[in-house]
Amino acid sequence: MDVYSSQITALVEQLSRLPGIGAKSAQRLAFHILNMPEDQVTSLSQAMTNAKKNVHYCKECCTYTDQELCPICASDKRNHRIIMVVENPRDLAAYEKTGKYDGVYHVLHGAISPMLGIGPADIRLRELMVRLQQDVDEVIVATNKNLEGDATATYISKLVKPTGIKVSRIASGVPVGGDLEYIDEVTLLRALEGRTDM
Amino acid sequence: MDVYSSQITALVEQLSRLPGIGAKSAQRLAFHILNMPEDQVTSLSQAMTNAKKNVHYCKECCTYTDQELCPICASDKRNHRIIMVVENPRDLAAYEKTGKYDGVYHVLHGAISPMLGIGPADIRLRELMVRLQQDVDEVIVATNKNLEGDATATYISKLVKPTGIKVSRIASGVPVGGDLEYIDEVTLLRALEGRTDM
Repeated sequence: MDVYSSQITALVEQLSRLPGIGAKSAQRLAFHILNMPEDQVTSLSQAMTNAKKNVHYCKECCTYTDQELCPICASDKRNHRIIMVVENPRDLAAYEKTGKYDGVYHVLHGAISPMLGIGPADIRLRELMVRLQQDVDEVIVATNKNLEGDATATYISKLVKPTGIKVSRIASGVPVGGDLEYIDEVTLLRALEGRTDM
Repeated sequence: MDVYSSQITALVEQLSRLPGIGAKSAQRLAFHILNMPEDQVTSLSQAMTNAKKNVHYCKECCTYTDQELCPICASDKRNHRIIMVVENPRDLAAYEKTGKYDGVYHVLHGAISPMLGIGPADIRLRELMVRLQQDVDEVIVATNKNLEGDATATYISKLVKPTGIKVSRIASGVPVGGDLEYIDEVTLLRALEGRTDM
């Protein structure tokens, strides 16, 4: 016999599909949601569907946005001649938090990984190359410091060098094997300051 | 400057209000949701609003259900003369998982806690007393083994005893598979006091 009625089971099942949410947490979340005021549940549910419906890639840097351009690409306070290449929007957010980087970004949405069958055509590299036809002084490669991130960095370096634009890589202040998203701001800044030509 | 566009920020904010989901997890979940196929997002969002709209207390045992009676109270395979009193539906689910209990339940939705200002009138005790006017052989109190759970158990015992119905409390002791060395003293003493002939 099912312990819960069908709609509760459905909710628990849907929640447990989310990353990092196991059966127990899904159950706990479901009962929390049942206890929330109805308007809060509506807000949460609408935030999901709205975001999914209206959010797409920024025309310029490929991060997520609900406008044509993301707030950073749309800003005239940023230096649009320096492009930091990151693997995903969370990494962008991590660098933004330092508050010290005033260039713009390019979000690849992944990294080259022969193991996972992800090739250069599967990430937003072509869009990066298109941007380099405008006036760009430097491309800072801030992909993760792991196998895939390094492979991607090397690939980008080989693509960009013939254009004469400077390519740099954030320094190994970021621990090897580390995920940018979880690194403290100071380390992220050191890595930025210590970037080397490639 | 906001790193994300407003609808992404809204989603992250809504998600971070859920219990056990911090800022980082909310961000991770939000981007996962943006990457999900649209119909999956719709299912998730509808599961929430549907459950919230249609789920209420079971007329009999006060657990959550989208029917008049929960599957357990509606079943004629269960012994309706034995009622196990638990603090919340997750505890009910935990006992159901044993597969060996064939009585029914009563969900209090809380425990008496003078510290938190939760009195007997704030939990579903009155509903329990109403049920005891029918034919009931035993009330098994399975509230948590802590201050609040024990206080609630004592309170229930005092309420039920005058009706002549048997009241019992689940045993305290060393968990199966538990290592004595790591068990706290109070539990060890309870296990000693509750020892059974063999």
